[in-house]
Amino acid sequence: MSVRTPDPNPGWLPDFALDETRARVPILYVEAVPVRINALGQVESIGILLRGSSTTGVMTRTLVSGRVMHGESVREALLRNLAKDLGPTAFPQLPASTVPFSVAEYFPLPGVSTLYDPRQHAVSLAYVVPVSGECNPRQDALELTWLTPEEAANPEVLADMEGGRGALLKEALASVGALPQ
Amino acid sequence: MSVRTPDPNPGWLPDFALDETRARVPILYVEAVPVRINALGQVESIGILLRGSSTTGVMTRTLVSGRVMHGESVREALLRNLAKDLGPTAFPQLPASTVPFSVAEYFPLPGVSTLYDPRQHAVSLAYVVPVSGECNPRQDALELTWLTPEEAANPEVLADMEGGRGALLKEALASVGALPQ
Amino acid sequence: MSVRTPDPNPGWLPDFALDETRARVPILYVEAVPVRINALGQVESIGILLRGSSTTGVMTRTLVSGRVMHGESVREALLRNLAKDLGPTAFPQLPASTVPFSVAEYFPLPGVSTLYDPRQHAVSLAYVVPVSGECNPRQDALELTWLTPEEAANPEVLADMEGGRGALLKEALASVGALPQ
Amino acid sequence: MSVRTPDPNPGWLPDFALDETRARVPILYVEAVPVRINALGQVESIGILLRGSSTTGVMTRTLVSGRVMHGESVREALLRNLAKDLGPTAFPQLPASTVPFSVAEYFPLPGVSTLYDPRQHAVSLAYVVPVSGECNPRQDALELTWLTPEEAANPEVLADMEGGRGALLKEALASVGALPQ
Repeated sequence: MSVRTPDPNPGWLPDFALDETRARVPILYVEAVPVRINALGQVESIGILLRGSSTTGVMTRTLVSGRVMHGESVREALLRNLAKDLGPTAFPQLPASTVPFSVAEYFPLPGVSTLYDPRQHAVSLAYVVPVSGECNPRQDALELTWLTPEEAANPEVLADMEGGRGALLKEALASVGALPQ
Repeated sequence: MSVRTPDPNPGWLPDFALDETRARVPILYVEAVPVRINALGQVESIGILLRGSSTTGVMTRTLVSGRVMHGESVREALLRNLAKDLGPTAFPQLPASTVPFSVAEYFPLPGVSTLYDPRQHAVSLAYVVPVSGECNPRQDALELTWLTPEEAANPEVLADMEGGRGALLKEALASVGALPQ
Repeated sequence: MSVRTPDPNPGWLPDFALDETRARVPILYVEAVPVRINALGQVESIGILLRGSSTTGVMTRTLVSGRVMHGESVREALLRNLAKDLGPTAFPQLPASTVPFSVAEYFPLPGVSTLYDPRQHAVSLAYVVPVSGECNPRQDALELTWLTPEEAANPEVLADMEGGRGALLKEALASVGALPQ
Repeated sequence: MSVRTPDPNPGWLPDFALDETRARVPILYVEAVPVRINALGQVESIGILLRGSSTTGVMTRTLVSGRVMHGESVREALLRNLAKDLGPTAFPQLPASTVPFSVAEYFPLPGVSTLYDPRQHAVSLAYVVPVSGECNPRQDALELTWLTPEEAANPEVLADMEGGRGALLKEALASVGALPQ
C-alpha cells in the first residue's frame, strides 16, 4: 500500500504530517473508562487520570485515550493505549465486542458540541474496560485515582474532565447501570 | 411481599406451581455462551454443552441457561447458572452491562418461531461470557466441548442445538465479530 | 400447552391468579420512552406520562409500560402498550432490534434497588421509541407532556418519576446521547 | 483550525491530498444497510446496491457507504450518504443512537482481515436504517434491489458483496434477529 521503507514505528507521523492530516479528515481515536468490577460484574470504582500541566500547573482529569494508527486494529489500539496510560500490569479485560458504548465526536471549536478538542476533529470509540491488576501510569505527569460511581458523577469532578468528557463519563456510567440517581 | 415463612430455597417452586405459572406468564431466563478470549478480546473458542438423554440416548447440544428466580437479580441468576453448568472453577467474567446481545423468545409450539421450548413461553436474556478457569459441569449427564468459531458455526452443529438455539448461537458469534463468512 | 378453552383475552389473568403468580416468579414487562426526533435522528423531546391518583390526588410521572402476556411476543407487547398509553394515532417506529437500552429490575421493597414496584418483582425491557403522530392517552387519568432533554433531566422531574424511574430515564437519555452535562 | 480560505465543499479533498492522507491514518466511514420494516419493527426486506463496472462489466453488490468529512458529524455523514446512494425520497429513519451495530475494519491487503479495501485502511461505523420512501440511486451505475432476509443471506449473494461485506451483512441481519437459520 505504501512505498515507504518499513517503518520502525508504523503508523507514527511526524508533527507536520499529523497537523496537515488533522486539517483534512476526522482522526479516529479509542477511549477507555477503566473500572473495577465485582464477581457479579457490577462496577465498584472508576479510574480517572489526573494530568498536571507543566506550564500552567493546572490539573485536568481525563480518560485513557489515543489514536488508532494506520494499519492497526481497533483492539490493538485499545490494548496499546491502555498499556500506555495504565502501565504493563493493569491486566485489562478487553471487550469481546468492538461495539462501543458511545461514539464520541470532538470538534475543534468549544461550544459547537459538548465534546471538543482544540487540536482537531476527532471521533472516538469509547469502551468501559474492567482491569484486574495494578495500574501505574508510565508518564510522570499522569496519576490514576479510583472513584466510586457516586464520586465520579459529582458535578465538580465531571466539570474538571478535559474537553467536556464529563458527559462521556456519565454515558459510560449509564451504560453499565452505575449512574447515581 | 409474601406471607410465606422464610424459604430455605427462595424462588424455588414445587412442580405443580411451576406448571401452573408456566401457563400464565412468560418465564424469564438468562442464557450464556461461554467463550475463551485472547488478550485482544477476540473469541478463540466457544463452550457448548452436550447433554445425553438417559431415556432416549440421544445427545443434544445446548447453552448455559436457567430461570431467574423470584427476588433474584439478573446478575445473580447469571452467576448461579454459570456455576451450575460450568462448575465452581470456571471464573466467568460477568459483563459490566446487563444489556444482552439478544432477547431470545421461546414459544411452546415448534414452527411458530425459530426458538421453541415445549414446556413454556420463555423469554431469555442472552450474554456472551468469557471464562478463564477450568469448566467442569456438575451434572453427570452434561459435558462441555470447546469449539472454534468455524466449528461452532458448522450447520450440523447448529442443527443439533436444542430448541433452535443454533440461531441464537449465530447471533452470539455475530455480536462479537466471530461469525465466519 | 394448556387445557383451558380458547381464551377471548389470551394472556389475561384474573386478579387472584396474577397475585399468586407475582409471588412466584419475576414478571416480564416492556417499557418505552417515547421521543420526537429530527431528520438527523437527534432526540428533540421526550414524552412523559402524568398520572393523577383518584384517591390521593397526587400526580406522578411515568413511562409507557405494561406486561408481556403469555403467548405474546416482546414486539407485540411493545406495540400494544404504546397504543394503550399513547392512543391509536401515535405512529411509533418500533426498533428493528429487540435488544433494549436497559434491563430494568424492580424489586418490591423500596431501598433494595434503585427501581422498585410495591406489587411485584418485575424485569422490564426498556426501549427508546420515536413517535411521529399525535399522542392521546386513552385513559382519563393519564396525560402526556413533551419535555426537552434539559427539562426531562431536571432533578425535580426525575424525582417525581414513579418507582425510581428517574434513573431509567437518565439511562434512556444517555443511550441516545441526549443526557445534558 | 485551518488557514485555508473558506471552502465551497468543506471536507472535500483533492485526489493527491486524499491519497496522501490514506497512507497516514485510518479513514472514517459510515455504512448503512437500508431495510423495510413492518409495524412491529421486523425487517421484511434489505436494500442491496448493485454496481456495474464500466471497464470490466462485472457487477458487484455493496452497501450504502461514504466518508465522514472533516467538520461533519456522524449523523450528517449518514444522512448525506443515504441521500447520495438512495436518492432524495428514501425517507430514512436515522437511529436515535449513534452506537453502530458493528465497527467494520477494512485493511488494504486481501486476506489480512475478512473486510478489505484496496484503497486504504478504513474504519466504518455500520447502521441498519429503516427507509419508508422510494429509493432511486442518483448515480447511473447504481441499482437498488430489495431482498428478503433469506435471499440476502444466500451464500452466493454474500460472496458477491464488495470487499468481504457479506460478513458485515450477516452481522446486520443478526443484530435485528433476521439471520435465517
